[in-house]
Amino acid sequence: MEVSDFQALIRGRMVPVGEELLPIGQIGGRVLAEAVVSQVDVPAFPRAAMDGYALRSEETFGADPYNPLTFKVIGEVTPGKVFPGTVGAGEAVRIMTGAPIPEGADAVLMAEATSEDDNVMTATEPVTPQKHIGRIGEDIKAATEVFKPGRGLRAQDLGVLASIGVGEVRVREVPSVTLLITGNELLKPGEKPRGAMIVDSNSIMLKHLIDRDGARVEEIRHLPDDREVIRDALLNAPGGLIVITGGTSVGVEDHAPTLIAEEGELLAHGIAMRPSAPTGFGWCADRPVFLLPGNPVSCLAAYDFFVAMALRLMGGRAEPWPYRPVNYPLADRISSQIGRMDYARVKLENGHAVLLATSGASALSTTTTADGFVVIDQDSEGLAAGDTAKVWLYD
Amino acid sequence: MEVSDFQALIRGRMVPVGEELLPIGQIGGRVLAEAVVSQVDVPAFPRAAMDGYALRSEETFGADPYNPLTFKVIGEVTPGKVFPGTVGAGEAVRIMTGAPIPEGADAVLMAEATSEDDNVMTATEPVTPQKHIGRIGEDIKAATEVFKPGRGLRAQDLGVLASIGVGEVRVREVPSVTLLITGNELLKPGEKPRGAMIVDSNSIMLKHLIDRDGARVEEIRHLPDDREVIRDALLNAPGGLIVITGGTSVGVEDHAPTLIAEEGELLAHGIAMRPSAPTGFGWCADRPVFLLPGNPVSCLAAYDFFVAMALRLMGGRAEPWPYRPVNYPLADRISSQIGRMDYARVKLENGHAVLLATSGASALSTTTTADGFVVIDQDSEGLAAGDTAKVWLYD
Repeated sequence: MEVSDFQALIRGRMVPVGEELLPIGQIGGRVLAEAVVSQVDVPAFPRAAMDGYALRSEETFGADPYNPLTFKVIGEVTPGKVFPGTVGAGEAVRIMTGAPIPEGADAVLMAEATSEDDNVMTATEPVTPQKHIGRIGEDIKAATEVFKPGRGLRAQDLGVLASIGVGEVRVREVPSVTLLITGNELLKPGEKPRGAMIVDSNSIMLKHLIDRDGARVEEIRHLPDDREVIRDALLNAPGGLIVITGGTSVGVEDHAPTLIAEEGELLAHGIAMRPSAPTGFGWCADRPVFLLPGNPVSCLAAYDFFVAMALRLMGGRAEPWPYRPVNYPLADRISSQIGRMDYARVKLENGHAVLLATSGASALSTTTTADGFVVIDQDSEGLAAGDTAKVWLYD
Repeated sequence: MEVSDFQALIRGRMVPVGEELLPIGQIGGRVLAEAVVSQVDVPAFPRAAMDGYALRSEETFGADPYNPLTFKVIGEVTPGKVFPGTVGAGEAVRIMTGAPIPEGADAVLMAEATSEDDNVMTATEPVTPQKHIGRIGEDIKAATEVFKPGRGLRAQDLGVLASIGVGEVRVREVPSVTLLITGNELLKPGEKPRGAMIVDSNSIMLKHLIDRDGARVEEIRHLPDDREVIRDALLNAPGGLIVITGGTSVGVEDHAPTLIAEEGELLAHGIAMRPSAPTGFGWCADRPVFLLPGNPVSCLAAYDFFVAMALRLMGGRAEPWPYRPVNYPLADRISSQIGRMDYARVKLENGHAVLLATSGASALSTTTTADGFVVIDQDSEGLAAGDTAKVWLYD
């Protein structure tokens, strides 16, 4: 199956997880499940945008250093306070940035254009009406839709929600994942490799990627290549999505594809992609199941191309792809076979993208030496040295 | 002070936090404090890169569909097991991807080039020596430096560390921050704005940014504009770095700059940048203190330009800047004053960057409508419509 068809299949199948109502302090990084309409104006009152004097602007007209005008300072207003009186003719109120404009005043003359002595302020510049006043609703007008559902909340979004007085808001739940790591040869991360045993590197890598994609790992289970043990785990694993690694090909110990077919629906198996060809996708016990190759580079690429998309769609995110591209000229030719997508790891050096590896599904170090990867489309025979390549940066 | 001088001052002052030894399961997103040298070869033994038959390659020479050659299958080896015998003349061992190559064999003939019946395998293709064998150290050679200190650990880095048997590793501690949010006019996030009171939007925004930058908020304190209360908080706040917002200008209630000068060292105050001019940096009670403006756009920009850098340097990170750029032609002219850096918020529309705002330090909604920002250098009068601008994307 072609990569794009596989991705289309995933898009067609994934459904967003449920919603929950959370206090504003707990929604960082979450996705809005509802539109947010402001109930208030921000600011809710006219406020000073500078430190200075609130006064009647027309009374300052004509002021300059040769014609200083004086005002009686009848008081002061600071943020959070309301000046109790009204600014009359020939009067001014000392005001700090953010404080409400007193009744009667229609401008703020900034402090730099004034001097003050014994409650008499001398103005040496005029100010126009409404100058240095933050108007009601200038930032956000009441009844405006501030965010649409599906918004992945940025830092500043939290600030805006706070400023309009949102206390709690409906967001998408965090999709949960069970990792089933299969292989008789596998030790757990933290153990030392010995004899014919190697250390599982996929679980710890996948957990980090799943966090990145706004989901969480519910459980990690290391399983032997035992058909009935794997069957039981597939049927009884907790979590909204299952990822099973290893045993996804067509060999005698590759139980996962046939188990999914027996117990549910194997929707796709085998992708026109190097590495990651033995990737699969199905449905079992009412949940999506991804079959990822055990070779770690294949596992990484298959996760990024397919599972990341599935989790982001489940999480209600608009952007299913986790990386951003930069354009670099290629230092070397990258050859590729028509009919297969290639995942070429590259390093950025002297303004060029230098090819590190296209093959080597087991050599995870190629993805740590690399700065990112170039995708060679399935309809391409490759890219020539000097061609501009879109590099998807790992960081 | 110019932005670049301010940044240079920060670079010169910040010192990385201490180190801690953590198990591999807890180091996601951390920064290595030590070089990691592999003690082992990966793989540690020659292993099959394909499913097929391990045999003596020279015995397959000449095999083709018209000249099939047969081998006696003397057993099978799966990952994690060691084949107990030796492959002799005319013999083959069925082998799965990842399994150790048996003694005597020097290649794997892939399953697709064979058929098997009653423990006799028929080969219809030859295979060259070492074909489909993952060699010892092919991924990582023993005694190789795998990572340098200062490496911000990616998902795949965790996988590599697991694969070489690392159980625990020295990483940088997570820098801790106390947020002192000052202002008599401020309500806490989650409250409804009322009267002359507004809701603090900075604490919740800064917390999210601080998490992004690999640090953590130790405590958030909301303080009145009371000189002695703020003094006490500055001297006794927990955390390795203090951020104080509001009251950072030169008005009567702007206590922070003078308090830092009294109790420590005010190293810089006032930046040639719009917004964010009333930003400051000092040292107090043996800790760096950043003074951020209370206006939320100024607070956001000043955080990103200065505090993010400080926290990343404290965390031992090589890359002090949190954003990545994309180039877009400008839809509009952006004018700027020489001698001042401008932080212009832009939206991406129809392949162009559309200016939303350069001024409006209090209008946080400009940063939620925007996709990112363009920096107009202090030596520039601005950019013309059609010019290519470097847009730093918020997401």
